[in-house]
Amino acid sequence: MSNILKIFKIGGGIIDDEQQLRLFLAELAQVPEQKILVHGGGKGASQMLTDLGIAPKMVQGRRITDAATLDIVTMFYAGKTNKQVVALLQSFGVDALGLSGADGNAIRATRRPVKEIDYGFVGDLPLDSINTVLVNQLLRAGLMPVFCAITHDGQGQLLNTNADTIASTLARALADLYEVELHFCFEKDGVLADINDEQSVIPRITAEQYQQLKAEGIIAAGMVPKLDNAFAALEAGVERVVIENALKINEPIKTILCQQ
Amino acid sequence: MSNILKIFKIGGGIIDDEQQLRLFLAELAQVPEQKILVHGGGKGASQMLTDLGIAPKMVQGRRITDAATLDIVTMFYAGKTNKQVVALLQSFGVDALGLSGADGNAIRATRRPVKEIDYGFVGDLPLDSINTVLVNQLLRAGLMPVFCAITHDGQGQLLNTNADTIASTLARALADLYEVELHFCFEKDGVLADINDEQSVIPRITAEQYQQLKAEGIIAAGMVPKLDNAFAALEAGVERVVIENALKINEPIKTILCQQ
Repeated sequence: MSNILKIFKIGGGIIDDEQQLRLFLAELAQVPEQKILVHGGGKGASQMLTDLGIAPKMVQGRRITDAATLDIVTMFYAGKTNKQVVALLQSFGVDALGLSGADGNAIRATRRPVKEIDYGFVGDLPLDSINTVLVNQLLRAGLMPVFCAITHDGQGQLLNTNADTIASTLARALADLYEVELHFCFEKDGVLADINDEQSVIPRITAEQYQQLKAEGIIAAGMVPKLDNAFAALEAGVERVVIENALKINEPIKTILCQQ
Repeated sequence: MSNILKIFKIGGGIIDDEQQLRLFLAELAQVPEQKILVHGGGKGASQMLTDLGIAPKMVQGRRITDAATLDIVTMFYAGKTNKQVVALLQSFGVDALGLSGADGNAIRATRRPVKEIDYGFVGDLPLDSINTVLVNQLLRAGLMPVFCAITHDGQGQLLNTNADTIASTLARALADLYEVELHFCFEKDGVLADINDEQSVIPRITAEQYQQLKAEGIIAAGMVPKLDNAFAALEAGVERVVIENALKINEPIKTILCQQ
């Protein structure tokens, strides 16, 4: 068996559209290597909060995860989305198994410390937060772990955690055991040289080129935190980071980020 | 390692009361043998359906699981309850891992055929529905599987399934590999000889005695399906069925059902 492990991350855009989600999962089922999926939230949880009359709690423009919000996002991410994704993958012949960070103590987070803002029930991930023994056991048993963006603190408290952070922390933690490729899937074909031209995908960016593109303002503001995160993962031993269209993961067009 | 496997089933009464749930899980953590937990629903899902203005769909007095109801029960059972239970067990030192039937194809159900009533998205469990290889792997890895009452059909459809049925089907399927004890936990101390006397727990009932107690009308109507189910499990190779108070699982007072 090859030692490649591909970690895919999908966000709200795909999750909110059942038809697109199904197409993505059918493509994912065609990826022959060992793989992990991390999924974010989507708009369903916000809609349900509105329907239930729970107003979004904002402090200084930041969204706060209070107890009522945590309940709803846990239901949505760990319940509805996670189980729907797993059931669809099973129907495509992939032996998927859904996990929150609490399950098998897969991801033990630290509740974000209160500084200027109390973010509420939000978890940050120290580097030792991943239970690599468990994840490795599941992979070796032929299972595909599917993580939602809910973790726990080990003291009985569930925590809302950023899905990009979960994906890159998993990638870094598993880089000792596998040749890890981290795939951020979204609705564009890759990193664009011109934000107004969907065809301007940059096929390959090294760490050095990234600094230059950032300095020149070619890489747009929204991509910067994602790419900073990606290059940090490369520095920590992840083999390759790929930015690609969720519906074209098996096509050659994409942006590959690499150390050099 | 002993070859005993204890399968515990809890229902709505315990789940709806966070304090009681916590007490039960703390007791469960003290059980030294290998174990599995199966939990039912609770009133939270019904309350949320009401809050969202989704009227319960009834046909001939039976509750129907339509698509909207399935969504909500999946969120509640597989999301909120399952993850809360797992996080609490982890805080009590138990390496719990939550599962729906879709996860790792743990329980593949058959959608209930439409006869007089179309029950909607409800799954029945044929005897070969349990993935005993997976459950055994998880137990051998030192994990405690925690099942919610959601299964799948293998074709991408989640299904609502009775938690008592899941517990007894797991018990029967695992009886070849383990010495299985099936524990139905509820708010009484066991099977009562006199329904008005909480002290009248019958400590032991054999299959033969059960037939007699049923014929004499001593065992009340509500207990009959549960006990019929329990004796069927015993006949299928389950070692022992225990009916007990969820808050007193480590105390001697309980009803033990056995073949003879």
